[in-house]
Amino acid sequence: MTEQVFSFLEKDADHAVARLSELLSIASVSTDPAFEKEVVRGADWVAAQLTELGLDTAVHATAGHPAVVARSHDEQVANPSAPRVLFYGHYDVQPPDPLELWDTPPFEPTVRDGKLFARGSSDDKGQVMCFIEALRAWRQGSADGKLPCPVTVLIEGEEECGSVNLPPFVEANRELLSADVAVVSDTAMWPGREGYVPAITYALRGLLYFDIQLHGPSRDLHSGVYGGTLPNPATILTRVVGKLFDEDHRVVIPGYYDDVLELSDEERETWSALGFDERDYLDEIGVAEPYGESGFTTLERRWCRPACDVNGIYGGYMGEGAKTVIPTFAGAKVSFRLAANQDPIKIAASFEQWLRDQPTHGLEWKITNHGMARPVAVSTDSPFIAAARRGIEIASGRQPVLIREGATIPIVADFKTLLGIDTLLIGFGQHDDALHSPNEKFELKNFALGCRTHASLLAAIADL
Amino acid sequence: MTEQVFSFLEKDADHAVARLSELLSIASVSTDPAFEKEVVRGADWVAAQLTELGLDTAVHATAGHPAVVARSHDEQVANPSAPRVLFYGHYDVQPPDPLELWDTPPFEPTVRDGKLFARGSSDDKGQVMCFIEALRAWRQGSADGKLPCPVTVLIEGEEECGSVNLPPFVEANRELLSADVAVVSDTAMWPGREGYVPAITYALRGLLYFDIQLHGPSRDLHSGVYGGTLPNPATILTRVVGKLFDEDHRVVIPGYYDDVLELSDEERETWSALGFDERDYLDEIGVAEPYGESGFTTLERRWCRPACDVNGIYGGYMGEGAKTVIPTFAGAKVSFRLAANQDPIKIAASFEQWLRDQPTHGLEWKITNHGMARPVAVSTDSPFIAAARRGIEIASGRQPVLIREGATIPIVADFKTLLGIDTLLIGFGQHDDALHSPNEKFELKNFALGCRTHASLLAAIADL
Repeated sequence: MTEQVFSFLEKDADHAVARLSELLSIASVSTDPAFEKEVVRGADWVAAQLTELGLDTAVHATAGHPAVVARSHDEQVANPSAPRVLFYGHYDVQPPDPLELWDTPPFEPTVRDGKLFARGSSDDKGQVMCFIEALRAWRQGSADGKLPCPVTVLIEGEEECGSVNLPPFVEANRELLSADVAVVSDTAMWPGREGYVPAITYALRGLLYFDIQLHGPSRDLHSGVYGGTLPNPATILTRVVGKLFDEDHRVVIPGYYDDVLELSDEERETWSALGFDERDYLDEIGVAEPYGESGFTTLERRWCRPACDVNGIYGGYMGEGAKTVIPTFAGAKVSFRLAANQDPIKIAASFEQWLRDQPTHGLEWKITNHGMARPVAVSTDSPFIAAARRGIEIASGRQPVLIREGATIPIVADFKTLLGIDTLLIGFGQHDDALHSPNEKFELKNFALGCRTHASLLAAIADL
Repeated sequence: MTEQVFSFLEKDADHAVARLSELLSIASVSTDPAFEKEVVRGADWVAAQLTELGLDTAVHATAGHPAVVARSHDEQVANPSAPRVLFYGHYDVQPPDPLELWDTPPFEPTVRDGKLFARGSSDDKGQVMCFIEALRAWRQGSADGKLPCPVTVLIEGEEECGSVNLPPFVEANRELLSADVAVVSDTAMWPGREGYVPAITYALRGLLYFDIQLHGPSRDLHSGVYGGTLPNPATILTRVVGKLFDEDHRVVIPGYYDDVLELSDEERETWSALGFDERDYLDEIGVAEPYGESGFTTLERRWCRPACDVNGIYGGYMGEGAKTVIPTFAGAKVSFRLAANQDPIKIAASFEQWLRDQPTHGLEWKITNHGMARPVAVSTDSPFIAAARRGIEIASGRQPVLIREGATIPIVADFKTLLGIDTLLIGFGQHDDALHSPNEKFELKNFALGCRTHASLLAAIADL
């Protein structure tokens, strides 16, 4: 049956590109109110596609931009008792600026050399359409016109501006969104030694973000008249923040590493076979030397070790030249990327306590927690990972690689917490797709691969 | 003879206030080009006063605002072989903003309750006129109409905007400005237990100011994707700056304290008799605890110990909320207040070397030296200090206190370096004169005291 579906996708490829281009011509920039009508148009367009496929579809208002949810009926599904898949993606896009750097206009999709150029082509409209085209192929290209397994589709419109309204929406709609596994296509393939390889991302780091300020004198003081007599907030803040790490660049907060899942020998071996080129990685970002917690490779530190970064520092005189001032306060943005099994609530409490334990000589902390996201890791022994492997093999003829990701996709942790389900992260982007940049593109061969992969993935899940 | 001069000053007091008011009505704001004509008018007005007293007077053009220089002839001086006094002051003033906070307009001098309110009344026109009125009293009120000792007067117009053209002017006019001792009236009296006491400031700290930046990745990076794999400039900068001090809050730069003149037992005793109230001092600036190098009192740390302050920190995300970025660079403003006998050139080299010795893991320093000023200290055994003591005693009937100042007056070090002379810092301001603020005032009793003091100081110097 899957072969039938694949051949439909092949014959229908030009139409699929035309449909994707239609979606890409909608300027659904979520962060800028000037584009609000286009955002609504984006939601409506996606809803119309899903309605056309016969799914129960609704555009749901939120406190921000609308979310589209569509569900299959039992009579549309070959095996209604198979696990239900919740597909998540977003129809909103980043602003297209700077416009003058685009070779063709960002909302006039253009194919050149087998690449489709447009804002959102890879992030995330192209990847959303991979899934919708796979649904279409099963409905219109298979013998019985049925989907292999039950499907729910959730396409939101605020991913590029923080998804603030999504977790409450999920929480308020648990029944509507109930499923057995989530699938997200918003990541990239793995750049192996001989080109891009299909990848399953099975773990993401979590996030904890603080703004910490030390407050002192009631007004800015002349550092000549007062220097040396009182605690300077900028001096003490740098001193405290500077003590966050020991000589091995390990975070000194008590208990910080206690819950971190150790890397298995199997993972270590698998990763060393991935062909990660550290020199290329550093050259691309203009960095001379790798640096971080000792005892781990760069790829291990990136994927499975917690990191702590100072994301910003501010206070006192920050302009050109010199001003001799002792500032009333100074601040830093400090964030933690949490490795699998670390608990953000526990780490947040431990960090705050550590800060308050540092000598500040009468200066006072103002600590703001700007949010947290749990790390996630799906067991590589999970049947859904096995199904994903099979689906990818059938679609591509290649073995997928299992990778992790250092960054955070908060909704994945929310799906775990609110819906109790794991997520399969299977993306078809490339690292050179220029996400968030001018001349964003999606390779048409990756679009085709994505459509095929989602089609065979649904069949593989139905067979579980 | 001095008694005659004092009684002239007493009889002429109203005229002196009228003359000062005339000068105060000139809006000679040096930092704002809109006031340029008024600045020139200020220079001309001062020059006219000095010409009227018979001195060789000229208004000298500089690359900025003009400087007025006047010299006495031998036939105008009772003892032409006595030491020559170089008096320094400035005719320019701070901007008067915010205007709405003034009770009477800043350039319409008004007397209320024995106080003369106007911009520049205390800083520094009132103090300049103390000296000019003393010259007038000797010329017009003494039996022979002669000055006790030779006098040179230098009144500049750029003190409130950094005096950038003054050192080159002094260097280019060494002969014109040659003298045996300088006198500067731009400081305040000492707030003792029973009111303000005349003070001689015999030492000032020097200054060394750096902007230090650490540069890393070629672009801002996503801290999720990259965190933990490379040296973050904001993290490493805070670590390095945080290591500048040891646990006793002593600066760790090699050789930093080597040349610092130790406080003498006599100074220590004198200072403890000054009645410095640490709690009042801290309360006024809203600070809970004193803090600094251990082993010294707050007043000692302020006046005779070097200080190091972080005057500003900047880099990465400095706005509201959260942004997960590893910045390309981060910077800090770091300044040193140098104690008597420290050499800014040596300390600058030592600091730069110390920075370069810190591990930065391939990040690169960009270090900018924003200028230096040598510390100055006049031996309290100097005959000029003795003369100043006598002059003050005769004028006020009180013993002056000998104090230091934590801040820097760069021209004092320039006089030492370029003209080879010490400076007597004798000021008549009060800490509540609201310098640089709305409702700046000068107490008329302090104006009178200043005129008398300069008159008797000249006589005391002539007797050396």
